[in-house]
Amino acid sequence: MPTDIEIARAARLKPIAAIADRAGIPQEALNPYGKFIAKVDTSAIPDFASKPDGKLILVTAISPTPAGEGKTTTTVGLGDGLSRIGRNTMIALREPSLGPCFGVKGGAAGGGYAQVVPMEQINLHFTGDFHAITSAHNLLAAMIDNHVYWGNALGLDTRYIAWRRVMDMNDRALRSTVSSLGGASNGFPREDGFDITVASEVMAIFCLAKDLPDLEERLGRIVIGRTRDKRPVTAAELKATGAMSVLLKDAVMPNLVQTLEGTPAFVHGGPFANIAHGCNSVIATRAALKLADYVVTEAGFGADLGAEKFFDIKCRKAGLKPAAAVVVATVRALKMHGGLAKDSLAREDLAALEAGLANLARHVENIRKFGVPPIVAINNFTSDTAAEHDLIRSFCRNHLGVEAVICRHWAEGGAGTEELANKVVALAEGGEADFAPLYPDVMPLWDKLETVAREIYGAAGLVADAKVRARFAELEGAGHGALPVCVAKTQYSFSADPTLRGAPSGHMVPVRELRLSAGAGFVVAICGDIMTMPGLPREPAAERIHIDANGQIEGLF
Amino acid sequence: MPTDIEIARAARLKPIAAIADRAGIPQEALNPYGKFIAKVDTSAIPDFASKPDGKLILVTAISPTPAGEGKTTTTVGLGDGLSRIGRNTMIALREPSLGPCFGVKGGAAGGGYAQVVPMEQINLHFTGDFHAITSAHNLLAAMIDNHVYWGNALGLDTRYIAWRRVMDMNDRALRSTVSSLGGASNGFPREDGFDITVASEVMAIFCLAKDLPDLEERLGRIVIGRTRDKRPVTAAELKATGAMSVLLKDAVMPNLVQTLEGTPAFVHGGPFANIAHGCNSVIATRAALKLADYVVTEAGFGADLGAEKFFDIKCRKAGLKPAAAVVVATVRALKMHGGLAKDSLAREDLAALEAGLANLARHVENIRKFGVPPIVAINNFTSDTAAEHDLIRSFCRNHLGVEAVICRHWAEGGAGTEELANKVVALAEGGEADFAPLYPDVMPLWDKLETVAREIYGAAGLVADAKVRARFAELEGAGHGALPVCVAKTQYSFSADPTLRGAPSGHMVPVRELRLSAGAGFVVAICGDIMTMPGLPREPAAERIHIDANGQIEGLF
Repeated sequence: MPTDIEIARAARLKPIAAIADRAGIPQEALNPYGKFIAKVDTSAIPDFASKPDGKLILVTAISPTPAGEGKTTTTVGLGDGLSRIGRNTMIALREPSLGPCFGVKGGAAGGGYAQVVPMEQINLHFTGDFHAITSAHNLLAAMIDNHVYWGNALGLDTRYIAWRRVMDMNDRALRSTVSSLGGASNGFPREDGFDITVASEVMAIFCLAKDLPDLEERLGRIVIGRTRDKRPVTAAELKATGAMSVLLKDAVMPNLVQTLEGTPAFVHGGPFANIAHGCNSVIATRAALKLADYVVTEAGFGADLGAEKFFDIKCRKAGLKPAAAVVVATVRALKMHGGLAKDSLAREDLAALEAGLANLARHVENIRKFGVPPIVAINNFTSDTAAEHDLIRSFCRNHLGVEAVICRHWAEGGAGTEELANKVVALAEGGEADFAPLYPDVMPLWDKLETVAREIYGAAGLVADAKVRARFAELEGAGHGALPVCVAKTQYSFSADPTLRGAPSGHMVPVRELRLSAGAGFVVAICGDIMTMPGLPREPAAERIHIDANGQIEGLF
Repeated sequence: MPTDIEIARAARLKPIAAIADRAGIPQEALNPYGKFIAKVDTSAIPDFASKPDGKLILVTAISPTPAGEGKTTTTVGLGDGLSRIGRNTMIALREPSLGPCFGVKGGAAGGGYAQVVPMEQINLHFTGDFHAITSAHNLLAAMIDNHVYWGNALGLDTRYIAWRRVMDMNDRALRSTVSSLGGASNGFPREDGFDITVASEVMAIFCLAKDLPDLEERLGRIVIGRTRDKRPVTAAELKATGAMSVLLKDAVMPNLVQTLEGTPAFVHGGPFANIAHGCNSVIATRAALKLADYVVTEAGFGADLGAEKFFDIKCRKAGLKPAAAVVVATVRALKMHGGLAKDSLAREDLAALEAGLANLARHVENIRKFGVPPIVAINNFTSDTAAEHDLIRSFCRNHLGVEAVICRHWAEGGAGTEELANKVVALAEGGEADFAPLYPDVMPLWDKLETVAREIYGAAGLVADAKVRARFAELEGAGHGALPVCVAKTQYSFSADPTLRGAPSGHMVPVRELRLSAGAGFVVAICGDIMTMPGLPREPAAERIHIDANGQIEGLF
């Protein structure tokens, strides 16, 4: 089998105008970025707003392990499978972040015969959305310090400025800094620091806004700090939001690309799945629903984090009603959940597999709590055995009452997901879906978090010290009690302990901090360590990345 | 007269494919960015390398004053004028920097009826070149700190890391920082800081490289610091240059846009005119020369800085032979050089004008020292009088032996520069040009700088303390003696004192510091204060910039 990059290079891409045509997007609505990428101006699509919505299919996964699950590949593969069986389909994915490409992991555009292309551009600057978000974020930061410099009319307490700067780079040296040094003409020295761009609240806002005016209104609600008498100060008070919106004006248009098999895909927005909600933009998802009968999308991390936030934040706020959810698992990852080490995954081990199925089972049951019918996709690996596949299928059928379908999109593209596609259609059209968020808006923030902990994580409850509890009360008192809670915790376990695989229960979830993202419209509950600026490894991928003698990029993937 | 933005909005732009067609660029060579901008892949233009070169016309100016000269407008106007008189013409300009758009000045794409469009995109993210340069620069910075973090095998002395970070933002708080605070996992704390992106050596390299392989080689030569035993350490030793080149792979293709009258223009690259050489990319200029019979380009600041660096750095290194140079002046600015205050410029004052002509005279004589025939363009203002115009024309004819042509491109577009265009053609085709740099490569660095000071600035000589003199010797000893010298000094005067207007002489030029830009291929001589990260004013333009109810950007220009 050729490598991902060999497959991507061998692909004959269709001109983006042909892909747009297939998606029912007229040429007037296209703003091309090169030959194979275009931003789509939906206001130029006739009768766009009055079109009926297609069916929304979420692809989520078991708790991630080092073995890998293949959520993005399955999303792309399912999209291609639906296309193959004659459904008018679009895919909606997050944009990859540039920083991590130079670290360990390489790109994020699928793999094998289930990729979105052109993968090099998608993984690098793409259409510049993340650069625009970086600029908008940092303009606000510059205006805050500039406001203080020129007299601080708003009376900002510079010890409590909550708005850090951002860069789309893995750069640990910027995590914690002191800025405005070097004398009076450089301002008032203070503690400062940088997050990676995907952790910016501007990114979360970008992905939750329904249009540009809504985006601007949300930017205005960002709380950047407080006065000495503890009054919150917003971006609107700094008069920053008009210019920030101008910087984001083109970026908000969704980016159209194609899969290797020519299925149209929107790749747009990409908030961190820990400090934010971890799914592509509402604008792209809603546009795709207008254009296609089936929209396949994915959410970050495992279903306990990604799907829960997709449902409780994105779907709740955007009024989306998912028709079905695909839970991706691999035999290898399930065996790790069952206790095997990574170097023992190649051999058949039905006992470990059976033990690991507890993780899958919990996720499947959780999906049902949102009124969304689940189905299991087993992303096939060459080391899988027939007995292992049989065990998963019978377990799913007998114990969970769901179908488990073996998928071979990595090796076969859409042909490898036809069975999954047919079953997803049957599920989505079966009338079973009756989506509702897990908790109502009116529930207190503490109770919302406790509900997620008990219902989704299998926890016994929350633990938090007095200061954190006081912060819950403070945010309720300030009128933020109706917001949903965005949990930042380890993605590797249902618990807050990343080493607890499988389906731990009865644990307590430690709440360390509560942060307000008033513009995005959620409260972040930090349950464990959270890293908002990654570092580079000892031998970063950047050292191997180069342009070869044929002008092709090597080492990026 | 409508405002710049009203004119730009009223313009009916031609599709970029039509502009490309006019420039002889086939569709296969176009990578569109929206409907009116494209990057041009010159390798897809048949017989490109073997085409003969057109004639290169430099637009430069007198020493700038607060009255304004209109160098960019004149460049655009002359391009349109040459088109009108039937010459196959292209324009080559710098890209505007994003940061300053939010400060005082607004955009930089010409004005009146002499603009390049679409001006909003050009002034904002454009094709993302500056973002790509920012990313490449900061990737190297991250790799430096990462190298130190993981053991510092190269033995970098962290007190002498010369590679700061960059951001395309006016943000004084970032000028001087301490980074890597917050504990061992964030690295080794050190003094650090940010420059604005246009001040990056990557920007200078980008603009001087002849192609992508040359770019990569130059990136590798960047000296980022030194070891404890004072050995210089390069970007190549950090293995950063492959990934940096990958980030710049698309950016190096020149950006094609159009003037309001449909003249094709490359707008590409934009290094600071103080710490760097201040003109658009060699790649764009050379491509324009292959495509057009006449190429009009501009250089930053007045001719003492901009034209001198254009000739001694860009033309020397890229093998360009300018055919003529236009020195732009205004009656108002000349009267300021003659001693008038800004609020007294509206009334006729022949005595002040005559006194101020000394500044123009020095610049015109300087141009001749490079073997390039000069011509003077008087950018007309409505307050100018016939007597003032007559005085300039007769002074130029009788004392300088050059033509001075009144230009009305701001109000009339190319129709207002037809006379200038005809005279530029006569000059360029007169066989008078015999370009040579001011000094040879082999002259010692100190003597090169002294030559510029005496010949161009009218100075009596240089002053420098022992430490600075030792630095000259150090760079000579390290093998950098053959590089040209890039002077960073005030643009407002021939001297180092910005308040000395007119044509001061006999002054001494203080040399404060000598910096090596080994990748760009020059040595920066800092003669006075130099600001590499601007700040925002008390009431930044950003506060007024917004999207209006019709979806149009207000306040940017």
